Amino acid sequence: MMSKRYFLKTAVAAAVALGAVLAAPWSAAASAVVERWGSTEIALSGPSAGNPFMEVELSATFRQGARTLTVAGFYDGDGQYKIRFMPPETGEWEYETQSNRAELSGRKGTLTAVAPSAGNHGPVRVKNTHHFAYEDGTPFWQVGTTSYAWAHQTEALEQQTLATLAGAPFNKLRMAVFPNQDVKNQPPRFPFPGQPPKGWDLTRFNPEFFRHIEQRVGQLRELGIEADLILFHPYDKGYWGFDSLPADVNERYLRYVVARLGAYRNVWWSMANEFDFLKAKSMAEWDSYFQIVQASDPYQHLRSIHNAFVFYNHTKPWVTHVSVQSGAIAEDFERAVLFRDVYNKPVVYDEVKYEGNFSRRWGQLKPEEMVLRFWEGAIAGTYVGHSESYEDPNGLVWLGKGGVLKGQSPPRLAFFRKILSESPPEGLEPIDKWQNHPFAGKHAQYYLGYFGLGKPRSWPFVLFKTGLKDGMKFRAEVIDTWNMKVTPVNGTFEIVKRDDYTFADKNGRSIALPGKPYMALRIVRVDQ
Amino acid sequence: MMSKRYFLKTAVAAAVALGAVLAAPWSAAASAVVERWGSTEIALSGPSAGNPFMEVELSATFRQGARTLTVAGFYDGDGQYKIRFMPPETGEWEYETQSNRAELSGRKGTLTAVAPSAGNHGPVRVKNTHHFAYEDGTPFWQVGTTSYAWAHQTEALEQQTLATLAGAPFNKLRMAVFPNQDVKNQPPRFPFPGQPPKGWDLTRFNPEFFRHIEQRVGQLRELGIEADLILFHPYDKGYWGFDSLPADVNERYLRYVVARLGAYRNVWWSMANEFDFLKAKSMAEWDSYFQIVQASDPYQHLRSIHNAFVFYNHTKPWVTHVSVQSGAIAEDFERAVLFRDVYNKPVVYDEVKYEGNFSRRWGQLKPEEMVLRFWEGAIAGTYVGHSESYEDPNGLVWLGKGGVLKGQSPPRLAFFRKILSESPPEGLEPIDKWQNHPFAGKHAQYYLGYFGLGKPRSWPFVLFKTGLKDGMKFRAEVIDTWNMKVTPVNGTFEIVKRDDYTFADKNGRSIALPGKPYMALRIVRVDQ
Repeated sequence: MMSKRYFLKTAVAAAVALGAVLAAPWSAAASAVVERWGSTEIALSGPSAGNPFMEVELSATFRQGARTLTVAGFYDGDGQYKIRFMPPETGEWEYETQSNRAELSGRKGTLTAVAPSAGNHGPVRVKNTHHFAYEDGTPFWQVGTTSYAWAHQTEALEQQTLATLAGAPFNKLRMAVFPNQDVKNQPPRFPFPGQPPKGWDLTRFNPEFFRHIEQRVGQLRELGIEADLILFHPYDKGYWGFDSLPADVNERYLRYVVARLGAYRNVWWSMANEFDFLKAKSMAEWDSYFQIVQASDPYQHLRSIHNAFVFYNHTKPWVTHVSVQSGAIAEDFERAVLFRDVYNKPVVYDEVKYEGNFSRRWGQLKPEEMVLRFWEGAIAGTYVGHSESYEDPNGLVWLGKGGVLKGQSPPRLAFFRKILSESPPEGLEPIDKWQNHPFAGKHAQYYLGYFGLGKPRSWPFVLFKTGLKDGMKFRAEVIDTWNMKVTPVNGTFEIVKRDDYTFADKNGRSIALPGKPYMALRIVRVDQ
Repeated sequence: MMSKRYFLKTAVAAAVALGAVLAAPWSAAASAVVERWGSTEIALSGPSAGNPFMEVELSATFRQGARTLTVAGFYDGDGQYKIRFMPPETGEWEYETQSNRAELSGRKGTLTAVAPSAGNHGPVRVKNTHHFAYEDGTPFWQVGTTSYAWAHQTEALEQQTLATLAGAPFNKLRMAVFPNQDVKNQPPRFPFPGQPPKGWDLTRFNPEFFRHIEQRVGQLRELGIEADLILFHPYDKGYWGFDSLPADVNERYLRYVVARLGAYRNVWWSMANEFDFLKAKSMAEWDSYFQIVQASDPYQHLRSIHNAFVFYNHTKPWVTHVSVQSGAIAEDFERAVLFRDVYNKPVVYDEVKYEGNFSRRWGQLKPEEMVLRFWEGAIAGTYVGHSESYEDPNGLVWLGKGGVLKGQSPPRLAFFRKILSESPPEGLEPIDKWQNHPFAGKHAQYYLGYFGLGKPRSWPFVLFKTGLKDGMKFRAEVIDTWNMKVTPVNGTFEIVKRDDYTFADKNGRSIALPGKPYMALRIVRVDQ
């Protein structure tokens, strides 16, 4: 069994490595030195009279050779203006500000971007059509979780959540910018100044609210966790009205969030959770909100949107990857694989029901069922998300508020993630998507098979033909995905062509299996 | 068991009813009287010198009140020009021709469109997002088959195919305009004048070739069968070069086919079979070919495209419905349902492997497996296609050449079609698409359940909640889909709310089932 220490160690190492740079991440002027994909900040004093949120425009152009990036600044309250920059390349960068206020305009400077420290691999990008990698090429095998409102809780609870995440297997967290409706435990901060529930000044933002979100996103970055920021959600239920703001407020809000958070390399933009439950917004509005984020973000972080019953058209060009809720799709790799062909983008099944004991059917997966979905998704060449919904007398549910994990899936997902981390860096591709073939991998190199609920007692050593030749040799391991045990199979297997579609062990051997569910096989080429 | 006579009777009735009008379908001048959605033809004599295919432009504008349709004409050889018209409404229509040749321009006339005869329901249209109906509102429950090159065979074989179709359950036939490569049995006609294999004059068409296709499409129309015309396919394998014509020839060809065949109400346009195997055409070309057909067709027949391994983006606006090849998707209603949500268009799984005994894995479905796919597709609210690939010493395979059907699925598909024809006209909708619920129908009215390979011995009378109220009453029938037997269940079932999701029989009764595969249930509301 793999211990949680594996992840704690990784997290601590990352935090230490980033420490030197993160000690003063937001200096009053741009740091002279910043690491590539780190963040630095130009802080400027300017007007505080009137409504700077509405009246003051500010941006800076960063230049390195022929490359320029225009980065929007933002008003941080108290006459303070900021422009945040995440250098996409090492080396010297010059900048100059632009503003409709003379005192903020024409400010120039330079900074030096140095090589990233250990654990900083840059933002996550799409790789090989259906997969992800950090910008430095390091594969990103998405093992996500969701905790919508964890960053709208008490300091103690939020710290507990961070400690939980430090020991958990997740490298992505879906989290909402706006708080959930929660009348009993009102969130400590709101995005707009004013009086709850609805006495907001929608022409201004509350910088303290956003600083807090940024602090948490920064802490996730230290833990090596991507923050999949949910920009709109329906869980306000009309109480504070954040689910049905006027379009011009939504647009200002999006630009403000992107200006503040775009320089965090671990940010992903999720336009919404269950977008179709936000009845006040039309499909055309969603298109325009996507386009605003796309146009505002100089770093082009990943963008998607999450559904309830209606699917957004993920073929649209501003969608970088597919984010889907479906109760059934990740139960079966033959279902999960279908969306790859439809979209030709990475597919993340962010919501596949949750581990828990809720009365609602979306929240009562057994842990075995939760883990199965990750494996089925992987065999389909797709990615899956976890969350947890165990009843709690104090309403402390991971899905909503964070805290501690009570389920049994996380250690199995750590094991799963470790297996993925040992797979080909190109990403797992279905070996034979045409029909019932439970293997993914890389032809003639690596095969990962998963039998799900099946209870085979043996597996004849037969591989799908692509890339194979007589005489190739393989070793095999039997993987018990629930008990987290890898058992090598003695000897090697040499293949010969069997028929139009397959190659088989030349001696017709099979691999013995224990007749239990949740078993996997790993087959790796050895003769090269 | 339902006999084939059911369909024979229907077909004969349709042929008789249409006879009066079809006796002289293409008169030398426009018929004074034509039925709505019938076809009439304006025939004009004109220049035969030079190359009329390239040099003469001809169209007519048909006007009724404020409505006009511009219909392209075509050169039919020997100095004959034709414009075909399918009146979309009853009543008087005036027309006037336009041409770049004086003798063909400014010809005027009128015609009267009368009510359609029995069996003429107009062209098939999209209805209720995911379904089809004829233009007069009659539901169209697609039960398709495929015979690519049936219209490129000998007269005797083609007549045999028509006789087979007259007794078969299919209401749609996929068929190719271009012949398949077949060196041994060269097709009797080619689309271009010249010498096979590649000595074509691509600046002209061979009218006789197209007249023959039209004759066959017209005969399908008499049989009540939609002709899903495959405009391009890769089965030429470069032999005649029809798979890799220059783009300008492809464009002329599309316009010529639409001008000739658009007035047949039973035409659907399938841009290709296995489009991605046509390596000479880029995705942008496919887009433009779709747009040419869309712009050329005054009747806006249904348009789609069929894939091998790559999916066309069916969300594009010129695609009216989804046409898919997939070996696995229609095996399971939970897979099949997924594409409905992605595309929000009718979904037809035109190729789901074929009944037969071929060595290739796409052609060796057992008949039970073929029939299962139609039922699973229906439960998903989608439509499925049949074909047959039984080895034949003379190469007479239904899929390729037509002839006779040898399989055991057709009578079961006739039974399936009869069950569908008794379902709600709105089309079958998944009752609860969220998770493993094998029922489709109409909430609180009609439920069709299918257990596939499952062998239940009983089914507890429990319905998903939507639309239900305590006290509603239902009758039930057990359907053996393989043995084609409907067995009524004694008595009625009165429901009460059971939990957050379901209503159940108030006495907790179950329906006994025989513990065999391929069983279905039909449950119909009776208290209204």
